[in-house]
Amino acid sequence: MDTKKKTDTLKRLKSIEGHIRGVHKMVDEDTYCIDVIGQIQAIQAALNKVKGQILDDHLHHCVITAVQGEDPKERERVLAEISEVFETATKV
Amino acid sequence: MDTKKKTDTLKRLKSIEGHIRGVHKMVDEDTYCIDVIGQIQAIQAALNKVKGQILDDHLHHCVITAVQGEDPKERERVLAEISEVFETATKV
Amino acid sequence: MDTKKKTDTLKRLKSIEGHIRGVHKMVDEDTYCIDVIGQIQAIQAALNKVKGQILDDHLHHCVITAVQGEDPKERERVLAEISEVFETATKV
Amino acid sequence: MDTKKKTDTLKRLKSIEGHIRGVHKMVDEDTYCIDVIGQIQAIQAALNKVKGQILDDHLHHCVITAVQGEDPKERERVLAEISEVFETATKV
Repeated sequence: MDTKKKTDTLKRLKSIEGHIRGVHKMVDEDTYCIDVIGQIQAIQAALNKVKGQILDDHLHHCVITAVQGEDPKERERVLAEISEVFETATKV
Repeated sequence: MDTKKKTDTLKRLKSIEGHIRGVHKMVDEDTYCIDVIGQIQAIQAALNKVKGQILDDHLHHCVITAVQGEDPKERERVLAEISEVFETATKV
Repeated sequence: MDTKKKTDTLKRLKSIEGHIRGVHKMVDEDTYCIDVIGQIQAIQAALNKVKGQILDDHLHHCVITAVQGEDPKERERVLAEISEVFETATKV
Repeated sequence: MDTKKKTDTLKRLKSIEGHIRGVHKMVDEDTYCIDVIGQIQAIQAALNKVKGQILDDHLHHCVITAVQGEDPKERERVLAEISEVFETATKV
């Protein structure tokens, strides 16, 4: 990842960590369940955003390198990983 | 898509179509809601499977062609599409 | 389901069935993969809508009846089903 | 939430917070993208688990109270919330 993207991703992860602590406090203080669930769903959306950024970066670096490279096994491995990430994405 | 994969995908789509008709019948006959929902979720899982097959095929053909090609704009377009598919996948 | 809601749900399912046939045709005619995937995602969103309608109806009939009823086992069964549907929903 | 369930939920959230910090470290140290994405997906699955626990608790307390209660508006409000949570669940 280039420095700017990496800084942004790290900042988002810090913010998500704080968000989790907020949910912990909500549960501890017996906040109304539906409000807690709403915050958890916001965290999951934020994690999807981070995941998207990382995947996008991966496509533009590792995938390009592997696909343009000389090693057919490495190319196959990298493409199979993308398929797998995609499949898991629809299951969490 | 090569002929074998295509035949398999078309067969799965035919089966999903029949499955949808089955759900139509269930709703028409006032089947217990939870059982109907269970069948709809099975159809969604089957559609994920088809989507995965098509994406996998796409990665092995169009993506390889574009990434190995001479046109940086076309490469960028193809990679951006993958990112977008991935992002939408987590939202349906 | 009351007649109006049922008619609407059946109509949506008919439309989804036609949409599936459209995707079958697209695959058969070798339409660009990403366009096919986009249509499949539209179908999945339409199925989510139907699922939501059925669940909403279920909450307003079976769940109310069971929760207001005299049988604690039946109440437990109905609530456990909702939890289960919710859990599966996040996995397809 | 009863004390035992609450303790368990709080423990899970603490563990997820640590997991997020782990992902932060992975990104900072330029760990292979696909491994980072795998960890994020594990966190999302863990959040789904917590969400399921909270919803289950909600169904067994607030929902039962509202559905058995005298106020039809409150009952409607609580059931509409469940439908909404379900709808959002399929979008994150």
